[in-house]
Amino acid sequence: MSFTLVLGGARSGKSAHGEALVLAQSQSPLYIATAQAFDTEMEARIAAHRRAREGRGWRVAEAPMDLAATLSEQPPGQAVLIDCLTLWLTNHLLAGSDLTAQGAALARAMVAHEGPLVAVSNEVGFGIVPENALARQFRDAAGRLHQDLAQRAARVELVVAGYPLTIKG
Amino acid sequence: MSFTLVLGGARSGKSAHGEALVLAQSQSPLYIATAQAFDTEMEARIAAHRRAREGRGWRVAEAPMDLAATLSEQPPGQAVLIDCLTLWLTNHLLAGSDLTAQGAALARAMVAHEGPLVAVSNEVGFGIVPENALARQFRDAAGRLHQDLAQRAARVELVVAGYPLTIKG
Amino acid sequence: MSFTLVLGGARSGKSAHGEALVLAQSQSPLYIATAQAFDTEMEARIAAHRRAREGRGWRVAEAPMDLAATLSEQPPGQAVLIDCLTLWLTNHLLAGSDLTAQGAALARAMVAHEGPLVAVSNEVGFGIVPENALARQFRDAAGRLHQDLAQRAARVELVVAGYPLTIKG
Repeated sequence: MSFTLVLGGARSGKSAHGEALVLAQSQSPLYIATAQAFDTEMEARIAAHRRAREGRGWRVAEAPMDLAATLSEQPPGQAVLIDCLTLWLTNHLLAGSDLTAQGAALARAMVAHEGPLVAVSNEVGFGIVPENALARQFRDAAGRLHQDLAQRAARVELVVAGYPLTIKG
Repeated sequence: MSFTLVLGGARSGKSAHGEALVLAQSQSPLYIATAQAFDTEMEARIAAHRRAREGRGWRVAEAPMDLAATLSEQPPGQAVLIDCLTLWLTNHLLAGSDLTAQGAALARAMVAHEGPLVAVSNEVGFGIVPENALARQFRDAAGRLHQDLAQRAARVELVVAGYPLTIKG
Repeated sequence: MSFTLVLGGARSGKSAHGEALVLAQSQSPLYIATAQAFDTEMEARIAAHRRAREGRGWRVAEAPMDLAATLSEQPPGQAVLIDCLTLWLTNHLLAGSDLTAQGAALARAMVAHEGPLVAVSNEVGFGIVPENALARQFRDAAGRLHQDLAQRAARVELVVAGYPLTIKG
């Protein structure tokens, strides 16, 4: 089976679009959340997202680090939305993980998943080079991950103002 | 009547493209400018823009805050270019306005306008998360405004290097 | 003859895409590199890029400043990849050059080149307005250069996650 990669900017509607893609294929979907709270601003965002999704009938799993393992545990046919890859990547960057190895393991698990799978991620590479070295490292890692996953994806979309542009597929 | 939303990056040619869309539909168009000068760099930009547009036959109105009201005052059939929404949003953010209420009022006025209407705005969500909290708040508000207006628009375009990609329409 | 302009974000795969476009038209292509090392991070990137390209059969020329002259010296029929315009623009910005004059000279040389020509550049205008004045100046200059070249180009593409969106052509 193959998957759909949904890229988009901040507040572009990429998550809502990813949700709609999964809901069109399943009535008992799983939402794998990757956010990890480092401050109160993020805690409030995470809680609001979780409440909103459970209220709309999603089962929610949290996988801020072990995303490949969480995905591999799902039974065949399970529809899954991963939201989002960039937060997962941030968590591994801050933990000092080997990002290349983590990206390869995730790509394998995504290709191996037998069922509808949509992964949402932030496109972060269209601004000025960040002055912060960690931000540059993150931006490079996100770009490499997106290229690698896009090659394996059946479909890639870029969401702008809520509407998808087809990049591949 | 409905409107066209023109998104684009900095110096992408989005304003020139928006102008061309309005001029194709009217010979007596109104340009509603939203810029407010906070420093000499912006003053020079605003003055240059105004001179250039008046020299090309536009009537120019300034609405750094009261954009919905200025639009509502226009007679039926008046062709209007709003340039740009992100500066208007910045002015309201700095003034401490209720951005959700302001966005809703603007959307109502844009839908209600009877005549050609093109609104230009900066797409600002494709970079790294800003370190500055106010910048994050602005980025989120801009993204929400673009999604809301895009849903109501007849047409949405993303301008890259002077050429429009069709997002909706 | 005319040329192809390949825009893309950081780590978007724009260079690999530009390479593929040139290699599809030539077996003895020239790679004109524009990077200039200001620190060890950039030195390592430049060296890795040069080794990788020479290993794949490219002839490599360095033109961090005199890009138009280097291009003009090429014989008719020579296939050329320029990678990338934004680094060349940065070098001129830091050197205090007249960016408008430099851009015009480059555009003339690109239009005059008789042979396959692909120029790669970073799209940097889709983020929040930078706090740094030099970064704002760079962003504006890059946007103006891209608009000017796009008008003269036979083809303009925007690379996202390794895949090109057609902007013009």
